[in-house]
Amino acid sequence: MPTDTPQPAFVLLRPQMGENIGAAARGMWNFGLDRMRITAPRDGWPNQKAVAMASGAGRLLDEAQMYGSTAEAVADCHYVYATTARPRELTKPVLTPEAALADAATRIGRGEKVAVMFGPERAGMENEDIAQASAIISVPVNPEFPSLNLAQCVLLCAYEWRRAVTDTPAERLEGQRTELAERVEVEKLGDHYEERLEEAGFFYPEAKGGAMRLNLRNLWSRMPLTRADVQMLHGIMRQMVRWKDRD
Amino acid sequence: MPTDTPQPAFVLLRPQMGENIGAAARGMWNFGLDRMRITAPRDGWPNQKAVAMASGAGRLLDEAQMYGSTAEAVADCHYVYATTARPRELTKPVLTPEAALADAATRIGRGEKVAVMFGPERAGMENEDIAQASAIISVPVNPEFPSLNLAQCVLLCAYEWRRAVTDTPAERLEGQRTELAERVEVEKLGDHYEERLEEAGFFYPEAKGGAMRLNLRNLWSRMPLTRADVQMLHGIMRQMVRWKDRD
Repeated sequence: MPTDTPQPAFVLLRPQMGENIGAAARGMWNFGLDRMRITAPRDGWPNQKAVAMASGAGRLLDEAQMYGSTAEAVADCHYVYATTARPRELTKPVLTPEAALADAATRIGRGEKVAVMFGPERAGMENEDIAQASAIISVPVNPEFPSLNLAQCVLLCAYEWRRAVTDTPAERLEGQRTELAERVEVEKLGDHYEERLEEAGFFYPEAKGGAMRLNLRNLWSRMPLTRADVQMLHGIMRQMVRWKDRD
Repeated sequence: MPTDTPQPAFVLLRPQMGENIGAAARGMWNFGLDRMRITAPRDGWPNQKAVAMASGAGRLLDEAQMYGSTAEAVADCHYVYATTARPRELTKPVLTPEAALADAATRIGRGEKVAVMFGPERAGMENEDIAQASAIISVPVNPEFPSLNLAQCVLLCAYEWRRAVTDTPAERLEGQRTELAERVEVEKLGDHYEERLEEAGFFYPEAKGGAMRLNLRNLWSRMPLTRADVQMLHGIMRQMVRWKDRD
């Protein structure tokens, strides 16, 4: 059985080598984390090499949740971090592991669901994965040798999680808070805008359409939208269509 | 050639598996460390498995200094840390990795020579090794699953070293167009939406109009909008009006 401790889910996107999945499980459990999610493991599931490498943390693999896509894997989360070293064209806050996992602990403490995503070994994350994230975690590596492997990156994040929850977490003053939207609601908002704007001819010229769609998608994911915000943004778009149709 | 940066030596005591020595080299160089010392490697030296695992950090193995005993390996150092999870009968200061490597940075800054020792894979350090140390580094692991491997322990200490000596901002905004919008731009965005939505009949019923306007205004102010975001949001609204006018 998973522990009861509220904690971030660690999401391995399309992991390739079973050994790395097993080592990631070990690294998580070394620091008390046991919620692993996986999308599309290259060599199928279950994976015997993962089991062999996980040794004492094999339970995490038995209980790992499998998803068909990045969006599905984080659909129920309110805040999502992407671990990636490479600079991207998408605008995002970039946090150190320490700041990010401290932030995650604060969010989890007030009832949000949080996920940390890790890209596949060689290729790393696609822009489409990163567009699902609220923020980026960047490990401050040696620029001359920045190649952290998957399990190392998981280990460092798990370590920072434990540091954040066993030390006194930094205080934060908050005003009155309303319920944050879940990722699936933000995704539907993105769909709604994209469909209507497609009809409206917004994504023009054709050559720039892809980048515009991605940036718009990213705009929504990056915003700390409440459920009420999402409803209002839907309402705005519906009303604009209604207005158009009325004339 | 080793880098000129003053830094701690990482000392692997009687390491067993070449793979772990290679992975330790990688972990060190990931965080800018390149002074490895080794005592009595079980499988001799050089070790081809270590070389294969080290890939981009192979230089550290070529330059590693070999010693016959723990005492010799740290003979020229002023301050020595022993990494060990297990409680010992020897009385020592016990530090977290963060505190220890920050302390190491301070010492090195004033000209001391510092070493961090790592025990062999299975047995761990002997009391005779620990007796050579000035202080102990204890990684705050999950007590239910405390078994960090050699390379993981090296990685965490190297990571904490780099954190101690580099000044990475906890959070920054990255991407192509990261310039935040000024308040006046957000205000104009609010005006634009309010005017158009007024025409479109969005603020209905009348009795709720005031609250709806206020909430919409507040939605924009609360978002971390960049200039590019503001332009896109203007564009969306203009396009919806254009679409309406076209039909």
